[in-house]
Amino acid sequence: MSTHFEHEIREQPERLRQLLARRSEFEAVGAAIHAFAPRFVVTAARGSSGNAALYARYLWGVHHHLVVGQGAPSLLTLYESPPSLRGALVIGVSQSGQSPDVVALVAEARHQGALTVAITNAPDSPMAKAARYPLALRIEPELAIAATKSYTAQLMALAMLSAAVTAAADGTAAAGSRWDALASLPEAVERTLELHPLSAMRGISRSLVTAERAFVIGRGFNLATACELALKLKETAYISAEGYSTADFLHGPIAVIDANVPAILVAPRGPTLVDLVPLLTEMERRDAPLIVLSNGDQAVAKFQSARVQLVSFSNAVEEWLSPIVSVIPGQLLACAVSSARGIDPDRPRGLAKITTTL
Amino acid sequence: MSTHFEHEIREQPERLRQLLARRSEFEAVGAAIHAFAPRFVVTAARGSSGNAALYARYLWGVHHHLVVGQGAPSLLTLYESPPSLRGALVIGVSQSGQSPDVVALVAEARHQGALTVAITNAPDSPMAKAARYPLALRIEPELAIAATKSYTAQLMALAMLSAAVTAAADGTAAAGSRWDALASLPEAVERTLELHPLSAMRGISRSLVTAERAFVIGRGFNLATACELALKLKETAYISAEGYSTADFLHGPIAVIDANVPAILVAPRGPTLVDLVPLLTEMERRDAPLIVLSNGDQAVAKFQSARVQLVSFSNAVEEWLSPIVSVIPGQLLACAVSSARGIDPDRPRGLAKITTTL
Repeated sequence: MSTHFEHEIREQPERLRQLLARRSEFEAVGAAIHAFAPRFVVTAARGSSGNAALYARYLWGVHHHLVVGQGAPSLLTLYESPPSLRGALVIGVSQSGQSPDVVALVAEARHQGALTVAITNAPDSPMAKAARYPLALRIEPELAIAATKSYTAQLMALAMLSAAVTAAADGTAAAGSRWDALASLPEAVERTLELHPLSAMRGISRSLVTAERAFVIGRGFNLATACELALKLKETAYISAEGYSTADFLHGPIAVIDANVPAILVAPRGPTLVDLVPLLTEMERRDAPLIVLSNGDQAVAKFQSARVQLVSFSNAVEEWLSPIVSVIPGQLLACAVSSARGIDPDRPRGLAKITTTL
Repeated sequence: MSTHFEHEIREQPERLRQLLARRSEFEAVGAAIHAFAPRFVVTAARGSSGNAALYARYLWGVHHHLVVGQGAPSLLTLYESPPSLRGALVIGVSQSGQSPDVVALVAEARHQGALTVAITNAPDSPMAKAARYPLALRIEPELAIAATKSYTAQLMALAMLSAAVTAAADGTAAAGSRWDALASLPEAVERTLELHPLSAMRGISRSLVTAERAFVIGRGFNLATACELALKLKETAYISAEGYSTADFLHGPIAVIDANVPAILVAPRGPTLVDLVPLLTEMERRDAPLIVLSNGDQAVAKFQSARVQLVSFSNAVEEWLSPIVSVIPGQLLACAVSSARGIDPDRPRGLAKITTTL
């Protein structure tokens, strides 16, 4: 029986297309950000939306040379000591737009004169109202508790906003090619979905089905993917999966890896592939079962073995947008593992769609 | 047979005392930071030092109203796209001062005119040389691969630096009381060590000894403690332990918890105790084995049961400094678990004392 979770995974190309069609809304906000000329960026988000905010760290770093700090809502809600946000671009990201701590940070930022943007699926939510520039995702209600289409739409919204800022800044070739790259994304997601029927994922995910724990490793733009897929495996399969950047993983956690601890590597074409050889060599030495999500097939193919499985995603995507595509086979893996373990991904135990924290 | 790991845990009161005696060095750097008037703070660190940098997020947030962003070295080393650090205070934290990516971020920051501080145990290291203001820990070489005394000394150095900035800013009562609080720390650590002979920890840690995975949960200042203890359990006991803030934990990961997944809660007296009731109630419902590290004994005592064990730390510590004390029983727990699992915490498999990443 099909779940909302699976259905919403398959809905993603369509939702991304609808979002792309609203380019002018993003251009208006991009122009406002350019005019504001922020000194730094602060994100306000938790859960899957917090993983989308990790993507913003690299997007705003690489394309706009800005430091992105993760806002700590407890500075307001518990310590009553708001940080100075003057000159900052503050981006709230939340599917529901409801969690009081995240809303409080956006409201405080606006009160201080920061430029505030809210990316949410709920245009009438407290977060949308708190921000000067609400950007609604309009992806129809997400019914599964574990986020999928809201996550990729959040990434897409962040990427469109970044392209819009670049367009406002120079209006030229760089911006044009970024919009072109964005336009090709829905099809890349569609092709990636077609590549991987759920039945094939069942075979590939075997090491995860029997695992209690796992690691998901990525870097740069795809640190977000690693953390998001780790969260999916927690929520929909109750596996203790932790997301790590390759570099941080080598600074300690790799000690945990042995033949019983599977790992997923996110390895898109691009500069982060330099990490691949040392990491794969180390994993092979420990005989760890590995699933490599990659569109850098040639670089990865030579590592294929009984322990290493390659799961491709579309090649037709630039690295800065690859998180929107690389997460897809991971979502399908989570779907297969969840079903094999007899768990309902639409209703993980103890979770509600809207989490309110202080 | 005693290990370097255990020996270095017990050395901490002495090392903290020596560090405290160097107040004037910190006051000089604090005055420079005050004069510079940073707009925001960026940290450069990985591993245990990265956890110390998490402490800085709350320390600089609560005491100086500054946003602290975690620096992403890959923006430089992989993407060749340095973020704008003008007007920032950039704090590098690294025991060895060697990792090229962390050093690159500090060097770039100085080049851009940011105010750079390096907190390291190696005064001649590349990171110490890269920064305008190197602050050496001088805690004698740390021989165990898993960090203990370098971590608490890093926290202490950050706390002394913060007190020094406050002193430079107003020179008055607030700064005086912060130095008084700092002065009482070594004794609080000493008392906490005395409270917990390793033999007692063996009994308390039983649920961890047989576990493959665990969570460590804290919030605010003690998010650092949660992440550091999770890393200790990974490095010295090969347990897949993940650190979480209470709020982020409730946004998804709590689905993983059942009667076979133990958790450690860090629950100091102070505003974060509001999280305790909802969290403990939820954990109790799932019959999860719990170890609560707390000095808020009254609040916690009512939850004690066969599944909930209370491990105290010294009451004589203000919340902002509690991470330097709350981590101690956790280090002792890791020591007990490591030994019960027959692992040598001085030499975890596959780790070196100095990790170099790009």
